[in-house]
Amino acid sequence: MPIRLDTRTPDFTERFRAFLGTKREVSQDVAQAVARIVEEVRQRGDAALIAFSRTFDRVDLATLGIRVTPQEVAAAVTQCDAATLEALAFAHGRIRSHHERQLPESGRYVDAAGVELGHRWTAVDAVGLYVPGGTAAYPSSVLMNAVPAKVAGVERIAMVVPAPDGVLNPLVLAAADLAGVDEIYRVGGAQAVAALAYGTETIAPVAKIVGPGNAYVAAAKRHVFGTVGIDMVAGPSEVLVIADGAQNPDWIAADLLAQAEHDTAAQSILMTDDAGFADAVIAAVERQLASLPRREIATESWDEFGAVITMASLDEAPALSDRIAPEHLEIITEDAEALVARIRHAGAIFIGAHTPEAIGDYVGGSNHVLPTARSARFSSGLGVLDFMKRTSILKCGPEQLRALGPAAIALGEAEGLGAHARSVAIRLNL
Amino acid sequence: MPIRLDTRTPDFTERFRAFLGTKREVSQDVAQAVARIVEEVRQRGDAALIAFSRTFDRVDLATLGIRVTPQEVAAAVTQCDAATLEALAFAHGRIRSHHERQLPESGRYVDAAGVELGHRWTAVDAVGLYVPGGTAAYPSSVLMNAVPAKVAGVERIAMVVPAPDGVLNPLVLAAADLAGVDEIYRVGGAQAVAALAYGTETIAPVAKIVGPGNAYVAAAKRHVFGTVGIDMVAGPSEVLVIADGAQNPDWIAADLLAQAEHDTAAQSILMTDDAGFADAVIAAVERQLASLPRREIATESWDEFGAVITMASLDEAPALSDRIAPEHLEIITEDAEALVARIRHAGAIFIGAHTPEAIGDYVGGSNHVLPTARSARFSSGLGVLDFMKRTSILKCGPEQLRALGPAAIALGEAEGLGAHARSVAIRLNL
Repeated sequence: MPIRLDTRTPDFTERFRAFLGTKREVSQDVAQAVARIVEEVRQRGDAALIAFSRTFDRVDLATLGIRVTPQEVAAAVTQCDAATLEALAFAHGRIRSHHERQLPESGRYVDAAGVELGHRWTAVDAVGLYVPGGTAAYPSSVLMNAVPAKVAGVERIAMVVPAPDGVLNPLVLAAADLAGVDEIYRVGGAQAVAALAYGTETIAPVAKIVGPGNAYVAAAKRHVFGTVGIDMVAGPSEVLVIADGAQNPDWIAADLLAQAEHDTAAQSILMTDDAGFADAVIAAVERQLASLPRREIATESWDEFGAVITMASLDEAPALSDRIAPEHLEIITEDAEALVARIRHAGAIFIGAHTPEAIGDYVGGSNHVLPTARSARFSSGLGVLDFMKRTSILKCGPEQLRALGPAAIALGEAEGLGAHARSVAIRLNL
Repeated sequence: MPIRLDTRTPDFTERFRAFLGTKREVSQDVAQAVARIVEEVRQRGDAALIAFSRTFDRVDLATLGIRVTPQEVAAAVTQCDAATLEALAFAHGRIRSHHERQLPESGRYVDAAGVELGHRWTAVDAVGLYVPGGTAAYPSSVLMNAVPAKVAGVERIAMVVPAPDGVLNPLVLAAADLAGVDEIYRVGGAQAVAALAYGTETIAPVAKIVGPGNAYVAAAKRHVFGTVGIDMVAGPSEVLVIADGAQNPDWIAADLLAQAEHDTAAQSILMTDDAGFADAVIAAVERQLASLPRREIATESWDEFGAVITMASLDEAPALSDRIAPEHLEIITEDAEALVARIRHAGAIFIGAHTPEAIGDYVGGSNHVLPTARSARFSSGLGVLDFMKRTSILKCGPEQLRALGPAAIALGEAEGLGAHARSVAIRLNL
């Protein structure tokens, strides 16, 4: 059973704080093992990739090849169901259109002192995309990571995906093909991250690595951060549904379960001002669980981490929601927009009864790579800006240097940086 | 003497690659020591801060207090030189004006299918600002880190700065006061980062930590990344000056030394198409070094890491510059803008003979926190966006759900996520 909280009970504050502090993942300390793997790949290149893949993925890359060939990709595409490929292409088109609107503008201006200032956005040259293997190999995630990079203008996207027992998911290859991924390598784990960061004989190094992975992949990204850029380190996923009593309990239950089925560490939370409705949703969850293919995972997630929070008024919801800072927030109430306006920390907001979060996962057009585990307090979902960087531009003429120079000299001297001061003074004959 | 390369020699490619690979910092492996410090602060809070400060900073915070009082700040301001305070205020005004232009716009639109998409930018609630102690305590850095946060709308900025032997730099406190820093704590090192990330009895936790520091601070930021956001991990600083033979060698030499005086690991590079001019700059550097207050540091940097690259034509410069991806790039040539247009990877570009980089360090208005050590290939200088995050917004009505739903169901089923598919199907009575 999920935990039940009510804002009107005297111990709510205490219990809500404890709830926020719940650890949903055992953090494995794999940093040392990962450091060794990374060093090995740096030293031995392809040979290390082949050795690690033999051990961890039971696959012989010396025979099979590290790189997936265009022929293999083409063969995989022919294996895929036509209707699924069509859905993938539909999703791809919508994701691309939406992300094209995120392209930033470069520009310059001249300020009152005559100083010219500005910035210019340019794409990262080469990006590595990590795709998990096994059951978590999702073609939709390939689109969500590769499309913003393509839209940003990244010239080279290199994808790595482990091939346990030699097997790759054909739909993952089809999605990569659709999104314009340039190179695909059948390696995974910390060794794949190391190869992308430092390069091997077969894999040229990239400048930034994105994509989700297990504890080893996360630790490897943390390890190579600085040498290359990385995206956020993904944690377990969550949804918060704020709903009033006028909603269909079955719809809300379905949304809670769509989150719970991801992972036993996933979290589904309902907030409502109607205790009877809360009971109805809980009953609907139980009913729907019975016929769910992934019922074991969903049941464990719901029982361990699920929560139902009732309150006197939905007016209380935004403040509580901000403390959770949910990755996904559904607001399904009569005056949803009024609540939306009051939310500050959320990865994505899904508004109204006809926007289940699964629409955003696949075909809404917005990105499904979102900040998890309360990190929406300080970070954003993946987007085009993550694959670009900004160069700032400054230009003074003699007059501007005369106007600004004395203050720069004063500060340089105050900081004990005499050469800084001199580089200005020498131009002003001071 | 700096290394000299010429693109016309047969071994240039090889030597340039070796030059790019030069390690300028011994990377200290302090990860384990830092992990212990962080854990200690999480467990024991203020008591750990007091103990570590006694050991590392030789200061008794149990007596002196962890928090710097408003009275201490006011007293520090009165100690500062009036002309320096005026220069600081001038810099503050220019930095604020420029950063105000970086505020992003939120927005929504309705696409051809009638789906409403959008995003909303909001500020991070609370930010921690790390300021190094000792000689590297720069008031200008306080402004460069705090002002973008203020402009973004951050409600709480908590600054930490070590007080070795109890001493704080009055100008650093004055800069914090000017920039509107809300709280100042006299703690530094990994223990200060841990306190900001997890909180203690005295220091409330923040959502993001920015600011430069030594190897321990960098490792601590890497360690707490995920629990809080962090900015980039700063490496040694560098400047590349691209100049033609028509320039004043003394001005160029001064700019190279302004970089070299920062740190023995700093790097100053000149690229020119005029070998005689290169000789003149090298001679000017030698002359100017003699009278430089920080000549020992600058000499070591110039001798160890300085470089002068001559070439047949400045046309070769942009491609070589992009491989260096310099933090600071000065372009001082006749047709500088033509070269500027061809640069892809640089933290900041300073255009023309009257824009020495030191102007950008203090009073230009742009930020001086820039990507170092080749990280301009994948990251940007600090700005307002670093203190904000984007919430994506999606809204479908019944008609849009009917149009998009079937593709979402197909993809959910293809990924084996039955509850995802059901959350859409149940609304469409499928």
